[in-house]
Amino acid sequence: MPPQDKLELADVARLAGVSPATASRALSNAYGVSPATRARVLEVAERVNYVVSPEASGLARGTRQRVALVVPHIERWFFGAMVSGLGSVLRAAGFDVLLYHVGDSEDRSRFFEQLPARRKVDAVVVVAFPVADEERARLELMGVTVVAAGGQNAAYPFVCIDDHAAARQAVDHLLQLRHTRIGMIGARDPAWPNWPVRPGRIQAYYDCLEAAGIEVDPALISTVDWGPEHGAEGMARLLSLREPPTAVYAHSDEIAFGAMSVLRRAGLRVPQDMSIVAIDDHPLSAFLDLTTVAQPVPEQGKLTAQMLLALLRGEETDQAMHVPTKLVVRGSTTRLRSAEENTGANM
Amino acid sequence: MPPQDKLELADVARLAGVSPATASRALSNAYGVSPATRARVLEVAERVNYVVSPEASGLARGTRQRVALVVPHIERWFFGAMVSGLGSVLRAAGFDVLLYHVGDSEDRSRFFEQLPARRKVDAVVVVAFPVADEERARLELMGVTVVAAGGQNAAYPFVCIDDHAAARQAVDHLLQLRHTRIGMIGARDPAWPNWPVRPGRIQAYYDCLEAAGIEVDPALISTVDWGPEHGAEGMARLLSLREPPTAVYAHSDEIAFGAMSVLRRAGLRVPQDMSIVAIDDHPLSAFLDLTTVAQPVPEQGKLTAQMLLALLRGEETDQAMHVPTKLVVRGSTTRLRSAEENTGANM
Repeated sequence: MPPQDKLELADVARLAGVSPATASRALSNAYGVSPATRARVLEVAERVNYVVSPEASGLARGTRQRVALVVPHIERWFFGAMVSGLGSVLRAAGFDVLLYHVGDSEDRSRFFEQLPARRKVDAVVVVAFPVADEERARLELMGVTVVAAGGQNAAYPFVCIDDHAAARQAVDHLLQLRHTRIGMIGARDPAWPNWPVRPGRIQAYYDCLEAAGIEVDPALISTVDWGPEHGAEGMARLLSLREPPTAVYAHSDEIAFGAMSVLRRAGLRVPQDMSIVAIDDHPLSAFLDLTTVAQPVPEQGKLTAQMLLALLRGEETDQAMHVPTKLVVRGSTTRLRSAEENTGANM
Repeated sequence: MPPQDKLELADVARLAGVSPATASRALSNAYGVSPATRARVLEVAERVNYVVSPEASGLARGTRQRVALVVPHIERWFFGAMVSGLGSVLRAAGFDVLLYHVGDSEDRSRFFEQLPARRKVDAVVVVAFPVADEERARLELMGVTVVAAGGQNAAYPFVCIDDHAAARQAVDHLLQLRHTRIGMIGARDPAWPNWPVRPGRIQAYYDCLEAAGIEVDPALISTVDWGPEHGAEGMARLLSLREPPTAVYAHSDEIAFGAMSVLRRAGLRVPQDMSIVAIDDHPLSAFLDLTTVAQPVPEQGKLTAQMLLALLRGEETDQAMHVPTKLVVRGSTTRLRSAEENTGANM
């Protein structure tokens, strides 16, 4: 008898006097095997201590029970929290989770070139990044179910927040606090420089100001790469204006953290000298007293996984799901003081 | 001819007149197949449009080219950054990365109960959490290579920082700044309440104070669950002392962020009223001006993956690797002012 880890399905089949396909079906409890044959195969497998490999049984059943999560920035809170929600639902449903971190364009082309040829998974979850047309074509070649988590994607069923609605909550909050000179620090992802990270977050700024009868001053819009260091850069640019804004809306909390560090270094007080609001509710925002529009991230991951499971089972399901956001008012925003109220602390 | 996605290896074997094992070896380019047989099998496979599944060829070769990353808190920066480093090296070496998020004890027992029965992977990377004895036994049952990333583990080869050395850098910095009443906010992980997260980080506090001839005051040690909210709780406890510390060493930057938020709310200034130093160099620490002992996290992931690859290839490799840390001095620490220098702002 060969050592256990060398035993193959073919050996079990030979010892049980059946074909490998029959042995595989018996071991994976599939249809088309008589009870007597199944019993014989199981008896042999037990005797020789054969461990059913999920690959062997998966091949026989035609399913691999595996989902690929394609994630651009696993080290960032948003992506980690999304993966945590996705993983908990998928694993509870018996799926294995394969992680494909596509941090740079090299990773990314490797993923899209290799995956279709490999048929490794039942489904792909694209976590919050835009899929280019040629990449979409590669995914289609694979013939697997694709869903998008945390970002709207015209081509695939998705779960995400309504970016326009979230941004409206942020900008309207500043307007209600009587601010009229409102800056925006918008984020683009350096990995996809030509793709506005969140078009709805830009559009809402224009729409809210227009609705309030305020003309947009292009000098108040600072578009930077994603990340706190670039949020700092964006705020520095706004502070260099002859007439800086009195309030700033940042596309994300991490952008706002960087912006706030510049204000602190400049000796400007938040919110007395500058109000700031963002979108996310990062786990550290409460500790930095940042007013923000909260989005539920692990929940989006869970909902996406549930949508995917429904699609794989062929069930009817909503294929475009927006989760609600809510304004969380903390200490970084305050009412604009009038010139009379102002004791000179303002810029 | 059945549709392509129903074609199994057995069909190819039958059409080529060979056994499934031979067909598999031919398709995976393994040894032991004559050139003529290989050519016949490949010709059949091409004719019927059979796609080699990695599982089928992997089974024949006896390797699955898959690594499981077992991660307790994927949504936290440290774990995400570690996974990012691990994944980049493993994928470049042709491995698939399976993610097992074991956030709670239920996930965790599911992982350890199911994995050994499944033989799905070539190796397991335990990311910065303690493996209990019974869990270790389950992993051994699997007979795969196990390494530990970001945390020392007596049972497995590991890559991590030297916690004692890192903590010494932090506490010695405070001592050099003339502080003698130094508090410690230590972290335990609520998922493993009886396991001190980092014993070296505690021991160094005692050792440094002893070396400086300072008696440890147990009231100055506040041990809390991991997380900024508990860092806040730990600092509040220190502030409630009749004689609070003048400086605090926190076990992690996120603990320190929470502690700093309490100081801000209490109207106390960092560093004039309280110095604070931590360990990590979280991506936001520069923006919060936190003095900290930096550890390179994605690099630890990369080194662990390289160690694992060497072990899988049967090469000689260092099996206990400590990566260096370094003190990064920012604005959260300052020299203790003497009573004469003190203008009453201190506590």
